Amino acid sequence: MAYTILDASNLEAYLFSLPQIKSFFNADSLLIDEIGDGNLNFVYLVTSANDASRQLIVKQAVPYLRCVGESYPLSKERMTYEIRSLQRFAELSPHIPKIHHSDEEMSLIIMEYLGEHIIMRKGMIEGVKYPKFAEHISAFLADVLFKTSSLFLSSSDKRALTAQFINNSELCKLTEDFVFTAPFMEHETNAELLELSDEAERIAGDIELKTKILHLKYKFMNQCDALIHGDLHTGSIMLNEEKTYVIDSEFAFVGPMGFDVGALIANLVMSWVSHTVLDETSDYPDWILRTIEEVWQGFERKFLQLWDETEESALFAKGFADSRVLKTYQEQYMHNLLQESIGFAGCKIIRRQFGIAGVEDIRGIEDAQKREEANRLAIKIGERFIKEHNILNNINNVMALIKD
Amino acid sequence: MAYTILDASNLEAYLFSLPQIKSFFNADSLLIDEIGDGNLNFVYLVTSANDASRQLIVKQAVPYLRCVGESYPLSKERMTYEIRSLQRFAELSPHIPKIHHSDEEMSLIIMEYLGEHIIMRKGMIEGVKYPKFAEHISAFLADVLFKTSSLFLSSSDKRALTAQFINNSELCKLTEDFVFTAPFMEHETNAELLELSDEAERIAGDIELKTKILHLKYKFMNQCDALIHGDLHTGSIMLNEEKTYVIDSEFAFVGPMGFDVGALIANLVMSWVSHTVLDETSDYPDWILRTIEEVWQGFERKFLQLWDETEESALFAKGFADSRVLKTYQEQYMHNLLQESIGFAGCKIIRRQFGIAGVEDIRGIEDAQKREEANRLAIKIGERFIKEHNILNNINNVMALIKD
Repeated sequence: MAYTILDASNLEAYLFSLPQIKSFFNADSLLIDEIGDGNLNFVYLVTSANDASRQLIVKQAVPYLRCVGESYPLSKERMTYEIRSLQRFAELSPHIPKIHHSDEEMSLIIMEYLGEHIIMRKGMIEGVKYPKFAEHISAFLADVLFKTSSLFLSSSDKRALTAQFINNSELCKLTEDFVFTAPFMEHETNAELLELSDEAERIAGDIELKTKILHLKYKFMNQCDALIHGDLHTGSIMLNEEKTYVIDSEFAFVGPMGFDVGALIANLVMSWVSHTVLDETSDYPDWILRTIEEVWQGFERKFLQLWDETEESALFAKGFADSRVLKTYQEQYMHNLLQESIGFAGCKIIRRQFGIAGVEDIRGIEDAQKREEANRLAIKIGERFIKEHNILNNINNVMALIKD
Repeated sequence: MAYTILDASNLEAYLFSLPQIKSFFNADSLLIDEIGDGNLNFVYLVTSANDASRQLIVKQAVPYLRCVGESYPLSKERMTYEIRSLQRFAELSPHIPKIHHSDEEMSLIIMEYLGEHIIMRKGMIEGVKYPKFAEHISAFLADVLFKTSSLFLSSSDKRALTAQFINNSELCKLTEDFVFTAPFMEHETNAELLELSDEAERIAGDIELKTKILHLKYKFMNQCDALIHGDLHTGSIMLNEEKTYVIDSEFAFVGPMGFDVGALIANLVMSWVSHTVLDETSDYPDWILRTIEEVWQGFERKFLQLWDETEESALFAKGFADSRVLKTYQEQYMHNLLQESIGFAGCKIIRRQFGIAGVEDIRGIEDAQKREEANRLAIKIGERFIKEHNILNNINNVMALIKD
């Protein structure tokens, strides 16, 4: 239907107008809670008045930045890309909440309520271990990235997929500005952290660092490997000990695979930094390090397994070459992908120290001295990730760099 | 208007229905010659019955491969991409024939007739020197590639441009198949050249070579630097001693810059091979070598000049970094671009020896022994281009490799 902003006054009528949703709730009235704590969208938890176990999430984009208001316009079409990417991801991976209804015109999606899962960042701040996380997220990354790439799709399917997301310009631009640009220069949007001004100044003047950031930004803008989530930090993951779900994919587009892998590694590293600084005696930092290693190793193993099972693709025509060529190419491909992932992770880590959007894991540290210590450790790792990413040969090198 | 195939019976009426075309011819009747010698389209030279100097070219795509007939379907929408790219190129460079009319629905374009120019490949086979060619084509490449890249455009303009060409899948697939795949394996479409079967077999089994071809093919499919012509060989250039025009851009899409630079270098190298084998005493081969060098040097100089004049772009935000960062990045960028260009040139050269589409410069050599000698020299250079492209540091290295 044509775009209408939904709120407590008209949401129930709208939901009852959708037969499969009405039938899901099986009730004459609905309980509606606005629960969105994000910056962008309105999010409602809707519960059947007859049966409290029948619950759904309704998420709608409005044509402005929700946390600021109508004075900060932001195209509601961003929801189009969230809908399309979640649908595609759901075809490829079980780690996506069930989609009950979506409507691009309405910039709206109705999804399974993940009431028994929490946002991973919150869980990690509390020091909760998730024994199946590395297994799940590495499978998600392998399935989604491999199966939306030229290593799997046909040439025309890959281009058709790229076309579906090519106009997600507004959110790509946010990443270009706030991940690759503003945090590395004097910029009005940066956090004002006087205690880090020596670091900010040093970074702003580092020629090698900034040249490498330009190379990474160029790849972000010009390398269309696969359909990526585009914002895969620990706030875009909901999980518990048994299950893991990826949400909030409005930044999705066909871009560099390493950006998703790197976003995840960056956020795990920042949690490690936080716990390392806050509690040296805990075994939680070691669990995080093992998780980082297992995420990469699991991803690489599953990605290559999918590749080995693929007879033909846009890249590799049947009969083009024997398995020795494929093996050599695969090794070089995964090597490049690890390097790019670490480069992107470095940008992500540093931008979270200086930029407009910090991470709660570090900005939420109450003790100012500890917080500064965490900031500086994160900056040191982020900087080395960027500067050394193209000389790292394997995940062991990465782990050694973090612990160094 | 809705798509109708034009021929001698209805072309005049169609042209007279277009006021600006009718007024251009200023006549009651038109002389119509079908002059297309290409594989794809119908091309008419239309002359005013009143004034033989009033001439235009009418080019229309039909929904099949013209040289085979209706049994080989090929989407007529390819003309859409030729129209869009020629229009864009014409905004950026004087080296495009004047476009008098275009109609995407009709898959038709009406252009200036370049009666005083010839196809460059023909001129080169005859040994004609074009003193302004290097200057012109390097300016064309610099203008078009720089000004359709993230080094110049804004982020959203770049994505909008990419979107305009993203569905040119059919012709991209032709390149993927016939430049990067079939010529390097046993394939029914390859030319049957028994005298080269030792070379074909050696290449088909060369692991290093084929791995590098996969990397180059991957870049062709996944690296969207700029709007490229996509088939910039010497048959897509019309010129005389004074003027140079680029035509036939139906392969255009947003892809790797090096593919256009490489296509041009490859075709100049093949002409050099041909003349070197056919006439050792001529100074024409040396003119070609100088031209290759001047094309790259002119391109690099003009590209960097445009870059230096650009205050802000998708990649480089104002105030992000000082000129030392820009200089360092520019050097690395041009270095990568030369390497990629030579890699692509290598694929182009080899595919012209084994593949379905040879070049007249070499396949047209009547003396079988000389022809084979030319084939082998071209293969040797093409192979070294592919294998060594990522260790070449500058154009001098490239020139030395060719002459070696």
